[in-house]
Amino acid sequence: MPAAQMREDDRLIEDFRRVRSASEALAAPLSPEDCQLQSMPDASPVKWHLAHGSWFFETFLLIPHLPGYRPFDPAYAVLFNSYYVGVGDRHPRARRGMISRPSLDQVRAYRRHVDAAMEQLIDRSGDAHAGLIALGLNHEEQHQELILMDIQHALSENPADPVYAPDAPAAAADGGAGRLIPVGGGLHEIGHDGPGFAFDNEEPRHRRWLEDFRIARRLVTTAEYAAFIADGGYRRPELWLSDGWATAESEGWQAPLYWRDDGDGWTTFSLRGRHPIDPDRPVLHISYYEADAYARWRGCRLPREDEWEVAARSGVLDQRASAGWQWTASPYAAYPGFAPAAGAVGEYNGKFMVNQFVLRGGCLATPQGHARLTYRNFYPPQARWMFSAIRIADDG
Amino acid sequence: MPAAQMREDDRLIEDFRRVRSASEALAAPLSPEDCQLQSMPDASPVKWHLAHGSWFFETFLLIPHLPGYRPFDPAYAVLFNSYYVGVGDRHPRARRGMISRPSLDQVRAYRRHVDAAMEQLIDRSGDAHAGLIALGLNHEEQHQELILMDIQHALSENPADPVYAPDAPAAAADGGAGRLIPVGGGLHEIGHDGPGFAFDNEEPRHRRWLEDFRIARRLVTTAEYAAFIADGGYRRPELWLSDGWATAESEGWQAPLYWRDDGDGWTTFSLRGRHPIDPDRPVLHISYYEADAYARWRGCRLPREDEWEVAARSGVLDQRASAGWQWTASPYAAYPGFAPAAGAVGEYNGKFMVNQFVLRGGCLATPQGHARLTYRNFYPPQARWMFSAIRIADDG
Amino acid sequence: MPAAQMREDDRLIEDFRRVRSASEALAAPLSPEDCQLQSMPDASPVKWHLAHGSWFFETFLLIPHLPGYRPFDPAYAVLFNSYYVGVGDRHPRARRGMISRPSLDQVRAYRRHVDAAMEQLIDRSGDAHAGLIALGLNHEEQHQELILMDIQHALSENPADPVYAPDAPAAAADGGAGRLIPVGGGLHEIGHDGPGFAFDNEEPRHRRWLEDFRIARRLVTTAEYAAFIADGGYRRPELWLSDGWATAESEGWQAPLYWRDDGDGWTTFSLRGRHPIDPDRPVLHISYYEADAYARWRGCRLPREDEWEVAARSGVLDQRASAGWQWTASPYAAYPGFAPAAGAVGEYNGKFMVNQFVLRGGCLATPQGHARLTYRNFYPPQARWMFSAIRIADDG
Amino acid sequence: MPAAQMREDDRLIEDFRRVRSASEALAAPLSPEDCQLQSMPDASPVKWHLAHGSWFFETFLLIPHLPGYRPFDPAYAVLFNSYYVGVGDRHPRARRGMISRPSLDQVRAYRRHVDAAMEQLIDRSGDAHAGLIALGLNHEEQHQELILMDIQHALSENPADPVYAPDAPAAAADGGAGRLIPVGGGLHEIGHDGPGFAFDNEEPRHRRWLEDFRIARRLVTTAEYAAFIADGGYRRPELWLSDGWATAESEGWQAPLYWRDDGDGWTTFSLRGRHPIDPDRPVLHISYYEADAYARWRGCRLPREDEWEVAARSGVLDQRASAGWQWTASPYAAYPGFAPAAGAVGEYNGKFMVNQFVLRGGCLATPQGHARLTYRNFYPPQARWMFSAIRIADDG
Repeated sequence: MPAAQMREDDRLIEDFRRVRSASEALAAPLSPEDCQLQSMPDASPVKWHLAHGSWFFETFLLIPHLPGYRPFDPAYAVLFNSYYVGVGDRHPRARRGMISRPSLDQVRAYRRHVDAAMEQLIDRSGDAHAGLIALGLNHEEQHQELILMDIQHALSENPADPVYAPDAPAAAADGGAGRLIPVGGGLHEIGHDGPGFAFDNEEPRHRRWLEDFRIARRLVTTAEYAAFIADGGYRRPELWLSDGWATAESEGWQAPLYWRDDGDGWTTFSLRGRHPIDPDRPVLHISYYEADAYARWRGCRLPREDEWEVAARSGVLDQRASAGWQWTASPYAAYPGFAPAAGAVGEYNGKFMVNQFVLRGGCLATPQGHARLTYRNFYPPQARWMFSAIRIADDG
Repeated sequence: MPAAQMREDDRLIEDFRRVRSASEALAAPLSPEDCQLQSMPDASPVKWHLAHGSWFFETFLLIPHLPGYRPFDPAYAVLFNSYYVGVGDRHPRARRGMISRPSLDQVRAYRRHVDAAMEQLIDRSGDAHAGLIALGLNHEEQHQELILMDIQHALSENPADPVYAPDAPAAAADGGAGRLIPVGGGLHEIGHDGPGFAFDNEEPRHRRWLEDFRIARRLVTTAEYAAFIADGGYRRPELWLSDGWATAESEGWQAPLYWRDDGDGWTTFSLRGRHPIDPDRPVLHISYYEADAYARWRGCRLPREDEWEVAARSGVLDQRASAGWQWTASPYAAYPGFAPAAGAVGEYNGKFMVNQFVLRGGCLATPQGHARLTYRNFYPPQARWMFSAIRIADDG
Repeated sequence: MPAAQMREDDRLIEDFRRVRSASEALAAPLSPEDCQLQSMPDASPVKWHLAHGSWFFETFLLIPHLPGYRPFDPAYAVLFNSYYVGVGDRHPRARRGMISRPSLDQVRAYRRHVDAAMEQLIDRSGDAHAGLIALGLNHEEQHQELILMDIQHALSENPADPVYAPDAPAAAADGGAGRLIPVGGGLHEIGHDGPGFAFDNEEPRHRRWLEDFRIARRLVTTAEYAAFIADGGYRRPELWLSDGWATAESEGWQAPLYWRDDGDGWTTFSLRGRHPIDPDRPVLHISYYEADAYARWRGCRLPREDEWEVAARSGVLDQRASAGWQWTASPYAAYPGFAPAAGAVGEYNGKFMVNQFVLRGGCLATPQGHARLTYRNFYPPQARWMFSAIRIADDG
Repeated sequence: MPAAQMREDDRLIEDFRRVRSASEALAAPLSPEDCQLQSMPDASPVKWHLAHGSWFFETFLLIPHLPGYRPFDPAYAVLFNSYYVGVGDRHPRARRGMISRPSLDQVRAYRRHVDAAMEQLIDRSGDAHAGLIALGLNHEEQHQELILMDIQHALSENPADPVYAPDAPAAAADGGAGRLIPVGGGLHEIGHDGPGFAFDNEEPRHRRWLEDFRIARRLVTTAEYAAFIADGGYRRPELWLSDGWATAESEGWQAPLYWRDDGDGWTTFSLRGRHPIDPDRPVLHISYYEADAYARWRGCRLPREDEWEVAARSGVLDQRASAGWQWTASPYAAYPGFAPAAGAVGEYNGKFMVNQFVLRGGCLATPQGHARLTYRNFYPPQARWMFSAIRIADDG
């Protein structure tokens, strides 16, 4: 084996170990009971996330490619499949919190079993499966972010407001949206193209014609958002999309998720527990409907995802990926020429291209190096439990 | 008054009479009981549609612009407002079928009252309000299409399969999607621009960069769709969007809306009652989810709305507006530079720009001359009660 | 034919005509649109009630017993069956309001067709079917009461508060519950026994051992009930059954059904439209949960149905059947030895013996002569749209 | 302290220790994750049951009666209150499974803290609080039965069909309902009266007049019930109460809870895991609706609770309390003269006297010595997760 190849394998193993152990580090502050919690159908238990990452490697790498590999437990194929129809049955998503067995300890043993086999596979096959392994690791990183979103939501149900970790990631203070920066339109290239890893939904790179626009350098702060609330933002239907107003009414929204006013001013709940809102930090846990209403109140709009990408590439955006994912006005749809990957792995992104909006950037829970300028995150317009934020724009 | 002006007024009055009487003609075959029916929250009673059109003219034209105008009944302002927040309270949409009083006769008297006053206004003011009147008439025409959709749905609840009218509009037979026609990409202009009437959502005209694509000249027929069903189209989740599959499962979809197999082959229900499906006519009453799954099954995709418009402008499309509105792959969103009209009328289109897809073309229930090449109809992806059809495309 | 027999037939025909025409008189103030309304699954359109009474005679008398009888329309067998499993399919209860055809006129023709045939049958058969005819007429009378309950509920949905009839039945003023009257316990006979008509659920007459108790001579008035509201009755969970409190919370109950406070004191809605509550009339439109909570607040309880019957038989009760049916503390259950009638008619009462409470007495909408001292009405504990009232009792 | 008194205290402490340690023994086979599970709103996590028993002693005994007692954690007052309105707020029942903290270990420490203080209290006060302590212990025993019901239901969600314990309690085989035994009617005394412990709902003892009846000596077996299924019992609406049929349809019932036919005959799930049904054991996990339909199919009925008590007192009933609680035809209601205990403890039974039926006997999960001949258990007619069984009767 030539030295370059060896170094490439070493790098693969190193990446593999780094990403896999990061998941376990996220679960370290949690008890078996904490890791069992599922607070809503959209969220999953931390234990499930830990197992599901291993299921991905077992299903797509080890079983097809490592001769003689014995699955840790055949029942896990059903329990820890998320939505991949092509690989068989799934346990119902909303009932993941009902799986007390395997225990957290057994899931950790499952991870060690898979990790050892993966190292064997890399040893044997070198970078033959590097693309699929990269996909698996990026997938694992997505679930690291989900672990933090989901456990924050689950802990928020406890009236004792438990702390995940006193030094958990938090948004840094900042100066607010500020004045909008003009960006020139014309024919631009959008999407991923190049040697590094990207998800299928970022491709192919293609041309878009844009009109001139303006975009905020920084994110909307808590103080800026609180002014919207104080001005009756949640009581003025003319600011809202029709579906947004209906949702706000039926859910009783009066403020972002986790905000509460017990008579002594707004507090919020984060991975560090409950504490007063901080006016200078970007506002988080905002639905598309709220972001859109806020922008309208301010006489602006949300940027489209191609505008965001062009602005980001031009260096116009501060805080590209610091505090929260930024809602764009773009419904999540396939790029022209989009073709999902072959096989069950191709179910990864395409089947969700409806009833969702694209968010760009990254957030305090996104693993270092995971996001890209062309990265397309997506959530339904009513979702609020992710770390979502507001960046405003207008037509220039 | 110069002769040209007089002629312009005459044309306005003529248009007004033609459109208003067309609504009443649609209700002519129906009894007071029929006109009372509301079969689901998305649909409205025919009586409500008849009243709502008058409410529009009363609210936006007569009250502000005809001195001394006396509303027919002040209570109607609440009963027959649809969703215009800017003009006050509304009766809950899902309970429109609960309004037995005013009776159908009283609603007809309301129409006569408004019609007489509108003619007065046009006499007095000439074409001063021509734009708003045109909006009112186009709005009335939209409700004419809704009258037919809604009454078909309501009558379908009756096990006796009542006939709306034996000569009601129906789709003509046709040859099927056929081979796809190539259309060249590049920088194209999209949207309405010019002197005629258009809704705010068709503007402004703007540039779009398109890649080359191919598109079907004709619509998918019932026979072509039946082959999809026969091939297990409704049992193969890999063909469906994730939300689409969940909807099909929870709703028990096995075929388009109104289709039924009582053991002797498929029948369907139309304005002409229940009858066997006709293999050669375009398939109708299709959700976005089904249209998308069908296209995927056929190895194609749905066209984007800009592709549709470019193809239509190039004369590539037969049946542009004959049988059914054609689902596009484009979520309903604002065009770059979109600005809603000022005042409550501006609520018309913008507040629905979420969770919907654009349909293009027209349908058997669309009034003659109502639709345009730039017309943007829109429905949520699960809706099936409108006259919706499938046109397929691919990347060329 | 002996004269006595002739007189008996004449009486049957006279009864038949009287009861059947009373139903039509109830519908006289209503338009076809009014008669189409179904405001909730528990209620039915007036048109349906009119048809269903005829369906009963057609199904149980004319088809089996009148040679050569031709059903008016075979489809009505499904449309107007209520819940009799033994006679075939039924149209879903919650969708009765969707049947615009047959029209009200056609339903009236159906009634005339059935009436004529019934007179023929009585002519031919004398009193051979007198028992079944009496059941049909008592059933028709029950639906007369339902017509008034259901149309009141439907009209209440209209913000114009329409009047059913300015001289519609209303409760008379009265002095309030007053002091409780002692009644002696011991072994008592309960239930119907004798020559007149009774429903199967009133039989057999049987013995019950009762302890001494006390019972109110008159019904609780609006003023008495308003004092409960003013004392926080709807805010004190300790007064309520657990299920009752949950219902009151989820439904937002703050007062009896139809009460509203627009800032100028309580009004209520009745067959005479909206008007201020009248302190001296019995309170109506009360659920079991509210009646029970009220009694607890007053340091009393509701009477059991055997206590009610014993007290009524002893002449202790004023207003036995004037304003509203009186909730008893007795869940609706079979009497010892109860045996339903043979055949589908036997489905009449027994299959509802769960999740309901017995009400005794009668109400302003009960046809003259319909109720009896042994009559057992029944509703679920959360129901409020019938004319229900409160009579209190205690252990003496 | 006289010797007799000392012995009485000793007995109290002994009882206390025996009952309290029995709860912990039930949790011994379970992991922290198992004890966290809440599979439906009606069920609670085992951890919650363990804590709630302590909460009862802390709230009603230690805080009011042990000078200087320090609550283990003031937050537990809200978390582990079940439904006692009189003692303040409660955590929402359906969200008990969301409380990961306190951990199972902390709840065990809470139990030790309360146990130690209770022993102090008994030492100090002798039998001054013996009545309230007996109530607390009987309450704890009720939760022991709930622990087994609830964990069986939770484990049944796991597709691996986990075993609670291979030697968990199970029903013994038996010969089936057999012929009915006649019991004489007349004036009987019903209810508890005497020195031993009883719940408030068993009192006062009072007279009831009964007609002659017959009752089965033994419970309906699995084989007997399987014959009902095989005869189309779940497909014949005429056998069912109206609400029962609606429930069976909407829930898709085809057999008792936990039964499954994977093509190789019926299996069921119990505390010992999944295994074939045993024809000779009493059928369990039956709703009232099913028990009632079964009895009707067999030409019988369910016994009333007073009939059951009279028969049991006469020694007619075998298996009085072996396998399952026996549904009676008696809705759960207050006995004549019933008065709830004063204070919050009085909320114990009375507030559930609606929408439930009485079950008599006992079951395989009932602690030895807990049930009595006068014991009144109660569940809603649709409940199936408790160990419920069928005993039939008729009118003799």
